[in-house]
Amino acid sequence: MSPSDSLAATGEDQLVSLLTQNLPQSARTLHGPGDDCAVLQNHDSSSLTLFKTDCLVAGIHFTMDTDPARVGAKALNRTISDIAAMGGQPSEALVTLALPPDLPLSWPLGLYKGLRNAARRSHTGIAGGETSSLPKGAPPVISIALLGSVAPPHLVLRSTGQPSHIIAVTGRLGGSLAGHHLDFKPRLAEAQWLAAHGPPSAMMDLSDGLAKDLPRLAAASRTGWHLLPDSIRRHRRCSIHQALSDGEDYELLATFPPDLWPDLSAAWRLQFPKVPLTAIGTLTNPDIKSPPLSGGWDHFS
Amino acid sequence: MSPSDSLAATGEDQLVSLLTQNLPQSARTLHGPGDDCAVLQNHDSSSLTLFKTDCLVAGIHFTMDTDPARVGAKALNRTISDIAAMGGQPSEALVTLALPPDLPLSWPLGLYKGLRNAARRSHTGIAGGETSSLPKGAPPVISIALLGSVAPPHLVLRSTGQPSHIIAVTGRLGGSLAGHHLDFKPRLAEAQWLAAHGPPSAMMDLSDGLAKDLPRLAAASRTGWHLLPDSIRRHRRCSIHQALSDGEDYELLATFPPDLWPDLSAAWRLQFPKVPLTAIGTLTNPDIKSPPLSGGWDHFS
Repeated sequence: MSPSDSLAATGEDQLVSLLTQNLPQSARTLHGPGDDCAVLQNHDSSSLTLFKTDCLVAGIHFTMDTDPARVGAKALNRTISDIAAMGGQPSEALVTLALPPDLPLSWPLGLYKGLRNAARRSHTGIAGGETSSLPKGAPPVISIALLGSVAPPHLVLRSTGQPSHIIAVTGRLGGSLAGHHLDFKPRLAEAQWLAAHGPPSAMMDLSDGLAKDLPRLAAASRTGWHLLPDSIRRHRRCSIHQALSDGEDYELLATFPPDLWPDLSAAWRLQFPKVPLTAIGTLTNPDIKSPPLSGGWDHFS
Repeated sequence: MSPSDSLAATGEDQLVSLLTQNLPQSARTLHGPGDDCAVLQNHDSSSLTLFKTDCLVAGIHFTMDTDPARVGAKALNRTISDIAAMGGQPSEALVTLALPPDLPLSWPLGLYKGLRNAARRSHTGIAGGETSSLPKGAPPVISIALLGSVAPPHLVLRSTGQPSHIIAVTGRLGGSLAGHHLDFKPRLAEAQWLAAHGPPSAMMDLSDGLAKDLPRLAAASRTGWHLLPDSIRRHRRCSIHQALSDGEDYELLATFPPDLWPDLSAAWRLQFPKVPLTAIGTLTNPDIKSPPLSGGWDHFS
């Protein structure tokens, strides 16, 4: 890469890898960049703090003709999905809005209606935020910062999967643009149950598509994968390609030791009869990438 | 206000007041919206958690021909200034970037250079972040989420000033566009010293100009003010109007019981001989607003 290359030529994963080199870390930071959330130690050792930010941009993550309440719910629920993916429970959010001055007041009021509802559903407080103007005509940006907590034995990282472990996903994949990308419910109860009853050897949430996110989990865990694409449960009228690449599924991608799987998947069916938990392959040695995966959502390329 | 009014017609303070009505709050939230940071209780009662977000927008807070390292330093230092204003110490930041795909890689690399330096100077970790694309040509947005901590006796709110208390400011005001708005050092050591040695009855940082921020502190404390504009120390070649209204001073605005003031201001001069701490008036009963203040930076009007 050269500094004069565009971000489009650099690509998102490469950009993040360059930016996160040699970052100063506080003494209590157990896990910094590279997982769904940062993980921080507390004085009190009975819980860990989870810390996450995310943002939504008009024209990228939603359109301005969408009901702003759905946009607000999506903004918070995306971040809750990241807290869930570590096995945690969200606690307090801050909301940062950058808005053009010609926007009608009804838009942020509607957005906050969705934020309030999503916060109440997940027992999360909205402890404040910040508003800034944008130059006229610029697309609104909503950034959410979210705190959460997890008991140390229930913390699940994305970097601790092992060869031979079963790869599983919750729900059905693909076709999120039909509405799911706005109206999903983060898999909070499901992830907390898995963290308490499995636990998974690794977990993350699926935001950029399995084709992008499984290689990320495998790279973090220093494994490869053997994926059975036919086994992926898809939303109606979705091709395998869509299930792999559409993104914004907000389902859980989790791995399990194979001896744990039979009992765990049976217990899951009793606990969550309406939500499938499907084995779709196994982690392998790092030299196997079967099939090779490409596509999925890259923010810049 | 009507929902069809523009944000420009609504104004920033009115917008924030509408958005923060009836927000769900977590049980451990001691102070939600309305101060420089949210204040959260911990299991361990020896410290409180401070939580803050802020954002910078190209074309509003900086221009794209500015060295991005200065922009990165400003982004983090603004948020540190808010943690300082509560008497706290910053601990971990998350960095959210929304960038257009045609931006050269050198820009975020430069930004992170400034972020790293500012983080090291204030002993703050950068525990992660998020990157998103913007539609082509949209102005970059940088949002910082910052955690900090403060010992309960050192917490200073903006809502606890009282009539008769002396109003004081650190440093000199006005003219920030000449460079100070990018290159300021947040008053972290000064604020921590005040919190430990005063403490101030109320404190906040000056980001939108004294003409905007003093009425905010007074409203939060349910007081009025009697301000002596001639007593305000100004940057060179700045008028009183500029000192009141330019904004981005990032100085501390603090109030003190009058009996505390003589000893405290003498001790301050020994501790910080190069930084003035200047009495500029007193808080009063809420019906006095002398002189009436208008102007300062409003993000939308």
